[in-house]
Amino acid sequence: MSTLSLTNFYIPVPLLATATEGETADSALVLASVLLSLVVIYFASKLGGELCFRINLPPVLGELVGGVAVGVSALGLLVFPEGGFSATDSLLMQFLQLTTEVTPEGLEAVFSSQGEVVSVLSELGVIILLFEIGLESDLKELIRVGPQAAIVAVVGVVTPFALGTLGLVYGFNVPIVPAVFAGAALTATSIGITAKVLAELGRLSSSEGQIIIGAAVLDDILGIIVLAVVASLVKTGEIQVFNILYLIVSAAIFLIGAILLGRLLSPLYVKLVDEMKTRGQLLLVSICFAFVLSYIAQIIQLEGILGSFAAGLVLAETTKRHELEELIAPISDIFVPIFFVCVGAKTDLSVLNPTVPSNREGLILALFLIVVAIIGKVVTGFTILGKPDLNKLAIGVGMIPRGEVGLVFAGVGSASGALSQSTEAAIIMMVILTTFLAPPWLRMVFKEPAVSPQEQEST
Amino acid sequence: MSTLSLTNFYIPVPLLATATEGETADSALVLASVLLSLVVIYFASKLGGELCFRINLPPVLGELVGGVAVGVSALGLLVFPEGGFSATDSLLMQFLQLTTEVTPEGLEAVFSSQGEVVSVLSELGVIILLFEIGLESDLKELIRVGPQAAIVAVVGVVTPFALGTLGLVYGFNVPIVPAVFAGAALTATSIGITAKVLAELGRLSSSEGQIIIGAAVLDDILGIIVLAVVASLVKTGEIQVFNILYLIVSAAIFLIGAILLGRLLSPLYVKLVDEMKTRGQLLLVSICFAFVLSYIAQIIQLEGILGSFAAGLVLAETTKRHELEELIAPISDIFVPIFFVCVGAKTDLSVLNPTVPSNREGLILALFLIVVAIIGKVVTGFTILGKPDLNKLAIGVGMIPRGEVGLVFAGVGSASGALSQSTEAAIIMMVILTTFLAPPWLRMVFKEPAVSPQEQEST
Repeated sequence: MSTLSLTNFYIPVPLLATATEGETADSALVLASVLLSLVVIYFASKLGGELCFRINLPPVLGELVGGVAVGVSALGLLVFPEGGFSATDSLLMQFLQLTTEVTPEGLEAVFSSQGEVVSVLSELGVIILLFEIGLESDLKELIRVGPQAAIVAVVGVVTPFALGTLGLVYGFNVPIVPAVFAGAALTATSIGITAKVLAELGRLSSSEGQIIIGAAVLDDILGIIVLAVVASLVKTGEIQVFNILYLIVSAAIFLIGAILLGRLLSPLYVKLVDEMKTRGQLLLVSICFAFVLSYIAQIIQLEGILGSFAAGLVLAETTKRHELEELIAPISDIFVPIFFVCVGAKTDLSVLNPTVPSNREGLILALFLIVVAIIGKVVTGFTILGKPDLNKLAIGVGMIPRGEVGLVFAGVGSASGALSQSTEAAIIMMVILTTFLAPPWLRMVFKEPAVSPQEQEST
Repeated sequence: MSTLSLTNFYIPVPLLATATEGETADSALVLASVLLSLVVIYFASKLGGELCFRINLPPVLGELVGGVAVGVSALGLLVFPEGGFSATDSLLMQFLQLTTEVTPEGLEAVFSSQGEVVSVLSELGVIILLFEIGLESDLKELIRVGPQAAIVAVVGVVTPFALGTLGLVYGFNVPIVPAVFAGAALTATSIGITAKVLAELGRLSSSEGQIIIGAAVLDDILGIIVLAVVASLVKTGEIQVFNILYLIVSAAIFLIGAILLGRLLSPLYVKLVDEMKTRGQLLLVSICFAFVLSYIAQIIQLEGILGSFAAGLVLAETTKRHELEELIAPISDIFVPIFFVCVGAKTDLSVLNPTVPSNREGLILALFLIVVAIIGKVVTGFTILGKPDLNKLAIGVGMIPRGEVGLVFAGVGSASGALSQSTEAAIIMMVILTTFLAPPWLRMVFKEPAVSPQEQEST
């Protein structure tokens, strides 16, 4: 009795959905395809995660590799329309066509809706992950390590950008605009991957962990600013100073404001939750808070994850922290893998194939970018003066994964016509390798703790 | 770093999403609008739930009413494209337009995608609810009360169908086809609403509770069969016997097969979960099982919720039951309210307005249908012979809510041209009233237990 369209199987007219266009997707089939996608995602995440765990690699790497295995590069089970693919490229859609009597146009509509729904679920996944990371972080510790985190973030943006841009212009004769683009793509760290590995190692609340998280959050903001600069450079040939100032000011106001306001309101929050009598009150009130901040962050041109991270930080200071951590764990268990598997599934490894001649130029460029990407971040830890107890290599390594942010740069560059195909391919290769290299390396540079708290119990 | 399209704010070209049509929705805005919708949904569900709880009504009624309040009938915050509405009808979309710089066409695309995503989340909500209900049910008890449940289901389908159809034909001179349609709309019980109220009352595992659940599940299957019969009658003027036999046989094979196969595989399931080392293994393996069965049920023209219910029943027999119940509770807390609030939000109360002349004919028809709908189900409990300990009135009342199934009939009838506007409006009114009447009545007929376990602790 759940679906308003269970009858679409019998009668070809649109039902309650008085569709205006002919291409509305059958909602019963959309649901079926989302269910199937989630089964594929969970299967890939657990198979990959368990295998990696057994060979002493971080499970999240397994989720990424599992995603690649079911994604566009290999099995083609989980394919997204946004890569320019159609339903015929998706094995899952072909399976759906075999098991139902859907028309080819109907299938395209289902394919597009399914991609949209799974993408939103994956976004919710990383929002929830950052909420959980915020909840497990310590605001006081984060403020204490703030100066070091700021140094790490700034050095980690300036070094790879300068090395990359100059190297491309003077070493490879790349024109200035694509060189700036490629340099910019080297800047931003993927907070999701690093944070997940730190949590898996039980190192999230260590000084190194908090410096990495703090720097990655700042990096995220710097990355958005760099992208705005580069994009306006490409579009208008000049830098729109106002736009950039707006971003910097709004990011600062948002983060500081959210935390101050959150602290002010948190006694009210505890009182409200204690007053409520119906099921799930603590969870829903907290998630609403996280979603509201995510929405605001998204709307003021920052990112949703910054909002949920701030919400987690604020709620970590209340008496509800531990109860909430326990409740959020299963939510996180079912949402977060969607994100990592989708990142893997969207990764198109065909750009790495050296037998394709057009890839070769890209491969040489890629080699250079990868070296710069690694050096540019590894040095960051060592710019922290004093503090001999800090594992400075670990901090640098923690900043290496570029994740999807690099792909955004490649996409913007390609769409604006600024990047040649080989430069775009080189950026994608750099992103793939840094993303997949960092998790095992990070595990290596952190001496294994006696008991890894994340694996053994609760979470 | 979560979104591949954070840059859509700056550059108007589609990015990695090499969109083929111009109307692709901006994914950052879709995410923002889904976040906002979820905040509205959670707010409505908790406000309504808490208010109802305080005046001693079932919280789920509050969630439905909360949904009506934010839905198309009142505030217009949560409006779905499938009702023939556009973005301008949605206050939430207007708010989005105010807070961002989206074009009107872009906003329509976001509106449509948001509706699609929230609808799928709501379907996932009822699938997870039935999984939880299955997990809290007792297969042995269900088999023991099977004969009684079967009587209740069959009587509860035949009585309102016969009374409704005959009454409309002979009492109101309604032609035979729309009368059959309206009669059919009186048959199927909304398992979601009843099950939720039973859980809230702590009566799910009582004999009455298990009879109601068993009968509602059978009713669901009977409802699908009735719909197939009526739909083929309207379409071809005759009843396609093969199609109906197919449905009956496949439903039987599916339910019995899922349970037998599930029992066979459950030792393997326990072993697999125990072998796995990474986070969330129990939850993900169980949810995969539920989703696979839901997918199969959906594909063989049954409904997803039957699959997840069967999965819950099977896993309830394993040693993992209690651990799983605890893990599924927070998942259920965040998914299930989406379903109930959406049911409320999609309910268009304007058909109840007696000042609109065209509603009046419908109101008289509706009065008749409501009386038949209530009598037709209330009698079912009393057809169980012997068993003086059973609360027979409670069983009948538990079968009253028609929920969305009735709306499906109204929608199919309207789309096929078989129903006049007043008959359609009357069916919708019947659905609204039975759905909103049953929860408080059910609470009344069950003597309040000393401690309501659902409200006080765990769940």
